[in-house]
Amino acid sequence: MYDIIIIGAGPAGLTSAIYARMANKKTLVLEKNYIGGQTANIYDIKNYPGFENISGFELAEKMKLQSKNLGAEFKTAEVKSVNFTEEIKQVQTFTETLESKCVIIATGAYAKPLDVKNEKQFYGKGLSYCATCDGNFFKNKIVAVVGGGNTSMDDCLYLSNLAQKIYLIHRRDEFTCLDTKLDAVKQISTQDSKIEILTNTVVTALNGNELLQSINILNKQTNKTNTLKVDGLFVAIGRMPDTEIFKQQLKLTTNGFIETNINMETNIKNVYAVGDVRNTPLRQIVTACADGAVAVNHFIKQK
Amino acid sequence: MYDIIIIGAGPAGLTSAIYARMANKKTLVLEKNYIGGQTANIYDIKNYPGFENISGFELAEKMKLQSKNLGAEFKTAEVKSVNFTEEIKQVQTFTETLESKCVIIATGAYAKPLDVKNEKQFYGKGLSYCATCDGNFFKNKIVAVVGGGNTSMDDCLYLSNLAQKIYLIHRRDEFTCLDTKLDAVKQISTQDSKIEILTNTVVTALNGNELLQSINILNKQTNKTNTLKVDGLFVAIGRMPDTEIFKQQLKLTTNGFIETNINMETNIKNVYAVGDVRNTPLRQIVTACADGAVAVNHFIKQK
Repeated sequence: MYDIIIIGAGPAGLTSAIYARMANKKTLVLEKNYIGGQTANIYDIKNYPGFENISGFELAEKMKLQSKNLGAEFKTAEVKSVNFTEEIKQVQTFTETLESKCVIIATGAYAKPLDVKNEKQFYGKGLSYCATCDGNFFKNKIVAVVGGGNTSMDDCLYLSNLAQKIYLIHRRDEFTCLDTKLDAVKQISTQDSKIEILTNTVVTALNGNELLQSINILNKQTNKTNTLKVDGLFVAIGRMPDTEIFKQQLKLTTNGFIETNINMETNIKNVYAVGDVRNTPLRQIVTACADGAVAVNHFIKQK
Repeated sequence: MYDIIIIGAGPAGLTSAIYARMANKKTLVLEKNYIGGQTANIYDIKNYPGFENISGFELAEKMKLQSKNLGAEFKTAEVKSVNFTEEIKQVQTFTETLESKCVIIATGAYAKPLDVKNEKQFYGKGLSYCATCDGNFFKNKIVAVVGGGNTSMDDCLYLSNLAQKIYLIHRRDEFTCLDTKLDAVKQISTQDSKIEILTNTVVTALNGNELLQSINILNKQTNKTNTLKVDGLFVAIGRMPDTEIFKQQLKLTTNGFIETNINMETNIKNVYAVGDVRNTPLRQIVTACADGAVAVNHFIKQK
């Protein structure tokens, strides 16, 4: 029987483990893939406070070691199902049933891929799923943003501080984002044509050698293909939280993220959600870490 | 004219500067004392994710260097007054008036001192103002908590996971905390007498050589003085935010903290508050950092 079981070993889960062990709680971290979650794939992090340059893998390893040396236990196991109905929470992996007073869900989210050939090859080499993370590498460069929702607009606005030119590529005519965001993007677009909006358009190919150099786009109305010279491509067509096994017991947003209050509490007492898997205003390493600290402290101090 | 002026150079302010420069914003950080704020005084940090052991001074220096190398400007200056009424915000120091599109307030808070002789001498050597930060150093030790509000109850609950024995010392008969918190403390107190509650009692002296060894307490009803052998003393008699110059223009809580929403916005557009100075559920380095990231991102993406 554990005090706290943490599902997921990205920055949110690992910080939860650090705080849980600082408070002397018997703590288990479950991870199905590898330590670090999405963070492990980041080549070069410049915005995590305290490190000028660090790879995601290295940062995650540091956090793991820190929590491990404080006494957190780790298991590599996929959670098959959970049962949150009783006071003692049950977490079922494919081989055993684990019990805990508190469960912290830190299963993260992943960006939807474009589903274009070579996408994996160019990831981190021109192709990115996070403008806030990688925008800084594209100062005075030409970039494209793919998407029609709030995130793609946010990305255009963010990148307008950095890039020389931004193509906004959207497969439909209509945008699904807030009008205010679209207006802000359109304003920049008309003012200095820094942003060029291409609707009814899809990306059909990624070209380059080591780094991305251009993309092929298809206008679905005219059926014409064009090549756009770009240094960067930001894909913002949606982010998928890993919440399948929780959806019967926890309140989710329409997009599938777990709803929490400011203490990271879900609708079930002693079940918390932290990091990218919850309805958070910003998905960054440092915000995920902060969520973990808040959740653990809330659990410990409420008794 | 700046894009973003940040008042205060603790972790919240420095992370704001990192994120502001990542987005290429002309950024100025103002600090009246020294880099790091309260953090600079912390001898040994074990719960900031990524560093197993680091001094507050060293961590703050790292964050300063990081933001400086990204291009943030720094000035040592005390802010005398602010004017947030116009779109362009004004920040007056004792020597000049600075202008900015956005102001991020990161002036922090400080713990109210006990006002007992030798208090400064024992700070970090048995005396602490933060149980979440320092509790872990007192595993199986005897500690005392001073205060009668929510924080002192939280500290007792937190420390009950670690310490062998906890004295809760309160100068009055009545507690000002939530009943639920007092009930939880009382429950532990009756269950195993791990917590001993001493009301109408004040701390009159701190004794020890290098480290704190005992405290003198005075019962104000019986007028008797006693000596309690303690390894640790946690002072939780209130935290004061540094908000004097903002109180005419910004909405504050009854305790003087700046009210923000989840995006760190105050009641005035483009004026944000981050870290310990705002109404936050937890005052930790990593949560302060996260606030800075959230505020900057909100400013940049709303346009």
